[in-house]
Formats: sequence, structure tokens, C-alpha cells
Amino acid sequence: MTPYDRLTARFSRLATLSEVSEMLGWDAAAVMPPGGAAARGDQMAVLAGVSHAMLTAPDLAEDLQAAVPPENPWHTANLDLMRQSHARATALPAELVEAQARANSACERAWRNARAQADFAAVAPYLEEVVSLVRERAAALSARLGLTPYDALMDGFQRGITSADVAPIFDRVEKFIAETLPKVEARQARNPEPIKLSGSFPADAQEALCRRLAERAGLDFAHARLDRSLHPFCGGTPSDVRITTRYDETDPAQAMLGVLHESGHALYERGLPLEWARQPVGLAAGMAVHESQSLIIEMQACRSDPYLGWLSNELVAAFKGQGPAWAPSNLARLWRRVRRGFIRTEADEMTYPAHVIVRFRLEQALVSGDLRVADLPGAWAEGMQHALGIVPPDDRVGCLQDIHWYEGLFGYFPAYTLGAMAAAQLMAAARAALPDLDRALAQGDLSPLVGWLRMNVHAHGSRLGFNDLLQAATGRKLDPADFEAHLRARYLS
Amino acid sequence: MTPYDRLTARFSRLATLSEVSEMLGWDAAAVMPPGGAAARGDQMAVLAGVSHAMLTAPDLAEDLQAAVPPENPWHTANLDLMRQSHARATALPAELVEAQARANSACERAWRNARAQADFAAVAPYLEEVVSLVRERAAALSARLGLTPYDALMDGFQRGITSADVAPIFDRVEKFIAETLPKVEARQARNPEPIKLSGSFPADAQEALCRRLAERAGLDFAHARLDRSLHPFCGGTPSDVRITTRYDETDPAQAMLGVLHESGHALYERGLPLEWARQPVGLAAGMAVHESQSLIIEMQACRSDPYLGWLSNELVAAFKGQGPAWAPSNLARLWRRVRRGFIRTEADEMTYPAHVIVRFRLEQALVSGDLRVADLPGAWAEGMQHALGIVPPDDRVGCLQDIHWYEGLFGYFPAYTLGAMAAAQLMAAARAALPDLDRALAQGDLSPLVGWLRMNVHAHGSRLGFNDLLQAATGRKLDPADFEAHLRARYLS
Repeated sequence: MTPYDRLTARFSRLATLSEVSEMLGWDAAAVMPPGGAAARGDQMAVLAGVSHAMLTAPDLAEDLQAAVPPENPWHTANLDLMRQSHARATALPAELVEAQARANSACERAWRNARAQADFAAVAPYLEEVVSLVRERAAALSARLGLTPYDALMDGFQRGITSADVAPIFDRVEKFIAETLPKVEARQARNPEPIKLSGSFPADAQEALCRRLAERAGLDFAHARLDRSLHPFCGGTPSDVRITTRYDETDPAQAMLGVLHESGHALYERGLPLEWARQPVGLAAGMAVHESQSLIIEMQACRSDPYLGWLSNELVAAFKGQGPAWAPSNLARLWRRVRRGFIRTEADEMTYPAHVIVRFRLEQALVSGDLRVADLPGAWAEGMQHALGIVPPDDRVGCLQDIHWYEGLFGYFPAYTLGAMAAAQLMAAARAALPDLDRALAQGDLSPLVGWLRMNVHAHGSRLGFNDLLQAATGRKLDPADFEAHLRARYLS
Repeated sequence: MTPYDRLTARFSRLATLSEVSEMLGWDAAAVMPPGGAAARGDQMAVLAGVSHAMLTAPDLAEDLQAAVPPENPWHTANLDLMRQSHARATALPAELVEAQARANSACERAWRNARAQADFAAVAPYLEEVVSLVRERAAALSARLGLTPYDALMDGFQRGITSADVAPIFDRVEKFIAETLPKVEARQARNPEPIKLSGSFPADAQEALCRRLAERAGLDFAHARLDRSLHPFCGGTPSDVRITTRYDETDPAQAMLGVLHESGHALYERGLPLEWARQPVGLAAGMAVHESQSLIIEMQACRSDPYLGWLSNELVAAFKGQGPAWAPSNLARLWRRVRRGFIRTEADEMTYPAHVIVRFRLEQALVSGDLRVADLPGAWAEGMQHALGIVPPDDRVGCLQDIHWYEGLFGYFPAYTLGAMAAAQLMAAARAALPDLDRALAQGDLSPLVGWLRMNVHAHGSRLGFNDLLQAATGRKLDPADFEAHLRARYLS
């Protein structure tokens, strides 16, 4: 065996162990009885320890030095990803990793109370500790990876785009929103008010419909499950994806659109290149690319007029709906309503980027040290005032709303909006390549779109970073023009 | 850290990894989509490899040599169990382990077809290979453990009893059955024929009842789940036990009694000593002890007259039953019916030992080489003729019925009947200690019995082997007298 062959065997075992953790994570969120939580924590910790030891073993480092992969861009990228993964795992002293685990977990607990009480002061000392350790982490990763400290964090979630790429794009989108949002609001005000669906929406009937929609979207339940959990997510492995949702018995929209969103994630995992399974290069390309795959299904395809026309019939059949509320035009007004709000997770696609841009700037300032934790609430209010012209009445709906920072996640937020923009750009390219796309959507048929994504996104695994993947699929690096055009077309024409 | 401290830390990690495998095993049987099977196999294999490497690491062997545990019978037993576990893991050459995995898996596949076709000849060559490797395995384990080859196999399932202990007890029980069975049949023939329950038994209603019965038996669903699978089982971990069953919508008995059986297993796991969690000495004491805990609940307690009196009301309420079929006396005739049959898993408690005794003798002869695989069908027919006076019409209901041998399991079968006898012996001791036991059972209340089992069985973990545990709990080693007395009392008085 050559050093490179040994590496592929080791990384395959590492990926297999990570599948195991993935499955236990699904179990914990979807089916585990509450009394299993403590043991599950230990199980996850032991798996993490085993993986870490495997990845940082001295002979693996020697193989990484010595390896000469076959001449082929896949193998080259694979070895490169192995080296990065090893560099990340060895860049941090064990004491820092442990201190972070302790601080993040204490802060997250304090945050749950602080948020309930809208009491930022109660969590501020914990967050200070978290931020201080994140800065240490960023510095250590920066030195090892040759990226700026913030980019070294962001790179852990999405390769192939830097904050220097993102900042001007976000500035432009911010300006676009400032100009466009008032027009969209004015136009929306001239339209009839959307009518809420009324009727009986039992969870089981919603689940049956969601399952049908996911299947029709291309998800094969011989390789997938749909379950219930408090927070919807997509987990599992490429041959056994597990999506979850929750059901509100007064309104089927959340579950339905949520399952379509998670189906997008699941289809991406299902479409990853089998011949590179369990190699670093065969895994998904990052969180922003993942989000592009969920949003192209949910936002681009399934909230489009043609699909809503089809979905309206499905809904009527499933819930015996009658009257104007069930018409496609009303569903469009209901599910594409634009509204300035305080809460990111409830935001529509027009205002969502504003929420992300505020967080992107604040977390950069926290990581650089330009913003002190104590000043976060004020800076948040300013940011929201600037971005959407609204100021949260308290920190619960302000800087306490998201769990991310309080569990030590910095550099993740941009992925949401990078994903939304990439989805629009990919959709434009798919539309150009597939002249009959709307006709298929009007029959609820996502297979032409998913087929195009398979070939142009999924099949690349993580061989390409974010911008290179977009370049290959659409001929351009990330360009917000398609996203803006999409919003204008949907909300102003 | 002392060598012993290092060992407890390592074995705790090993037990935690085994919990992970346990959870993935549950997932595979209860919820996994079929397309996940191949990846799951890889996941299990990687976990097994990691555990094996951990257990056979050279420095662990050194610690086992050097360890001096604190002076305390628990620690002494713990170290002893660690040494045995290590001896088992290192006794076998890797090539043998691999050859067995391959041969067992090929034989199991061949067996599925052979059984369907009642064609023993088709699987015989595969079984020959399996038996030949099992004999190698038994010889290697025998040399390392200082047990006879067959005992070295049996010891892997249940410590603390040997085939020399078992053989005379089985001889005696065989004689007892030969004498008693005709009397039981004669008496049964004088009773009215049992009436099958008729009505509508939807799976969901059965499941709700089963859940209530398990709860009433003492299972806390904050630490347990009840799901569906093809083959009912109890898996999971002490703080998160997972039991499964299947529902026949024409007859609720199988699921109900099955769930009570699995609840017995689950209550055992739940009752293991928390202070020894994840140490070898804190785990369950073996398959025979485990079976005693399921059978004391299902057979001893829940098929007793007092419990059936209570259960009859529950059934009537759950399924709106009316008429004589639902009377406790009919339920007793229905669910305690004695009948000579070919199939072990369908046997009643009176004839079940006969099935096990036949297998015990045959598998000893296969392991010793006294019986050739080609002669198995003839020997089986002879055995059944001798034990129950019946001869199977074909091998499908003869020596092809059980999966055990065809997947390489030899030495397991005695555990079923050792468990049944231990259950009777424990019940007699519990009854002597708990004068109000029947009054509690008549209210469906198993808590006095389970409380007694907690203290006298569960709390011992695996500190004691089979006979020592019975000695501690009942004052005697295994003694079939209580089992015989139980059968006489239930079927002849």
C-alpha cells in the first residue's frame, strides 16, 4: 500500500465513524427517550475522541507528507482536503478544545434562561468567555491555514469563499434591499390580503402529504425516512438520509415547505458521487452549498407559480379544501409575503439577507475585537435600524434570538445568504439549460431540475470550493445579479 | 493513575462503544430504510474493529498483568471479567475470525433458501465449513480459558455453569417431561377447548395496550421505547432500553405476551447497578440470566391466574370484548395450551425444554466431531422421536428451523431452558419472601416482584456467575425441582 492508499483507507474509516455519529444525532433528536441523553452525550464524546485520535495519529501525518496521489484532479483535491482536515485537527491545543467545549456548553445553558427572560446581562459574562476562546481558536487556525482569523472560522463551514469576497456582495445586496423593499411593500399593499387556510390539518394527514411531496421531489424512501422533531433537519448518510419536521395542526404550510426544504438537502446527499463515497472529496461541499440545494427546491422551485398551481390541487385533495383561500394566487400571496420582522428564522426571502448581513458584520467585529460583548445589544439595534429600519423592543427578539454565537458558532451565518444567492444563480442556469422546466414544475415534477443539479452540483462532491463550483455550474463566480433578478421578478413584476 | 484505574477507563470506553453498536443494531431492526443496510454493515464493522484494537492493545495487556484492584469482591470480579474478555479477544487468530465471518455469512444466506425449500443438502456444505471453523474456535478458546471446547463456547453466552452441570439436569427434566406430558395432555383433553378471541385488534390499539402493560410492569418510558420489528427483541442501553414487537391484527396475544417478555429483559437492564455502569461487572450476567428475567415476567407472573384475571379486564376494555372467550379461565386455557409441536419458538413452557435438550446434545456432538453434518437430519428426527414422540415431516420444521447454527452460534441453546428453570426457582424464592405477591399480581402490579428481582438479581450485575447468582438469590444452585413443581402446579393441579 502506498501512503496515499493508506490515507484513503483511514479517511474512509473516519467518514464511517462520522456516519455513526450522524445516526446517533438523528436518534437523539427524533426518537430518543429523554432519559437516554446523558449516555448519548458520552457515546458522542467517545466517538469524537476515537476519531480525533485516528486523525492525529503520527503515522497519518507521515503519510500526508509522503503521499503522492494519482494524477487526477479528484485525487489531488482529496489529498488537499485530507491535509486541511488534519491541519484543523492539529492546529488547536487540546486545552483550548476542552475549554471551548466547557465554555460553549455553559454559555448555551445560560442563554436559554437569558433569552426566556430577555436578559442579555445574564449571559454576557458567558458570551465574553466564549468570544475570547473563539478569538484564540481563530488565531491558531489562522496561523496554520494562512487565512485571516475570521476566514479561518468561516472556512470550517464553507470552503472556497472569503469574507473579502462576501463583504462587497453583501454591501450591494443591502443597497438592493433598501431600494427594493419599499417598492415591494407598496405593491403588496395594493394586492388583496392573503386568506389563511382554514380547516382540519391532522398531523398524520400532513405527514402523508409531506411524504408524497418528498417522493414526488425525487426522494426514494428505500434510502430515506421522514420523522418528527422539535427542530426540522436533515441528517443521516447518503444511502440513508433522515429528514424531520414538525406539524402545526392549524396550518400545514410550515411542515410542507419545511419538508421540501429538507428534501433539497437530502437529495444533495443522495446525489453525491458514489465512487468517492467516504472520501473527503466525496462529501458535500459545505454549508452554503448545502443551503443552496435546500433553497433551490423550497424557494426557487416550490414557491414558484407553476409549482403552487400543482400544489394547490394536492392540498385541496388532501384536506378537502374549498374556496378562494386554496387558489394558487392566494397560496402565492400567503407563502411569499414580505414583511420586515425581528426574527431571522421567520423572515421571507426578501428581508432574510438583511438579518444575515447584520450578523456577518457583528461577528466579524466580535472576532477582531472591534466590538465588545457588552456593546452587542446596542450594535444590534443600530444594525437592524440601518438594515430594515426597525429596532427590536427587547434582546429576546434581538441579539438573543439565535443559538449560534452562544454555542460558539462564528462564521456560519453567511452560509444562509450565500446559499440563497447561489440557489438563484443555479436556478437561472438550470432554466437556461431546461426550457421545459416550468412545464414540469406545473406538474409537480422536479426531476428535470434535480437531474440538472445532480450533474452540475451533487456529482462534484467537494472537489470544488464555493466559487469554483458556481463557476463550473453557471459560468460565473457568485454574482448577486440572479438573486436580485429573481426577487424583482417574483415580487415586482 | 494505577494500572487498574487505566483499565476501568478503557473498559468504560469499550462499553460505551458497545452501546453505540447496540443503538445502531436497534436502528437497523426497527427503523432503518432497506437502502441503509450496506452502509450500516460497514459502520458496525468499523466499530467492531475499533473496539477490537482497543481491547487487544499491548499496553492494555500490560495493565491487566500489573493491575491490583482495591480489596473488594466487585473490583476483583471486575478485573477477572476484564481478563476473560481480553483472553477471548486474543485467543483467536485474526484469520480464523475473518474466515468465520465469511463462512457464517455465506451459510446464513444459503440457509434462508434451504429452509424455504426444505432442502438440507443445499446448505450442508456451508454448515460443514461453519462447524469445522467452530471446532477450531472452540479448541483455541478451550486452550486459553481452561474449559472444555463446548464449554468455552457456552461460556461466551453464560458464565458460571458448565455442560457437566447442565447434562444431568437436562436428563432429569427430560424424564420429567416424558412422565408428566401425557398426564397434562389427558387432563387438558378433559377441559373445554379454548375459544379464540375474536374481534377487531388494530395494531395501534394493541400498541397502546402493550405500552400500558409495560408501564404497569414497571418500565419507565422516559428511559425506554416500544417499536415494531419483524423479530421482537430488547436492545438499547440501561438508561435507554428499546423493546420491539410485531402486531397480528387477528390476535393480540403474541404482541401482548411478547411485550411483557421483552419488558422483563428491559427491566433487568434498567436495574443493573448504576455505580458499576459500563464496567464489565456492571453489565448483565449472561444470556441465561437474561432469559430468566424475561420468563419470570412473561411465564411466571403474567400467565399466572391472578394476573390473567386482571389482564382479562384490560383486554375487554381495550377491545370491547364480550362473551366467554374473554374470561380469565379461557385466557388461561388459550395461553397455557400444551401441545407437542415441531417448532421451538412456538412451543409452550412444558415442551420447550425438550426442544432445547435435543439441540444441546446435537450441538455437543457436532462440536466434538461425534456427529457429522450429513447425519444431522437423521439425528434430529431420532432426538425428536425420543423427546416428544414426534418426527418432523421435513427438515424445514426440523433441523432447518433455527438460524443459530447456520450463523455459527453454538452453545447458546441451553440458555433458553436454564433461563426457564432459573425463573421458576427465583419465583419460588420471591413468593416465599413476598406473601402478598398474588394479591399484587391480581391487580396487575408487578412492583413487588420487580423490586425483589432488583435486589436479588439485577443489582448483582455480572459479579456472580449463573449458579452463584442463584445460590445468592435462592440459597441453592440451579435445581430443576422448582421448575417441575411449577409445571405440576400449573398444569396438573
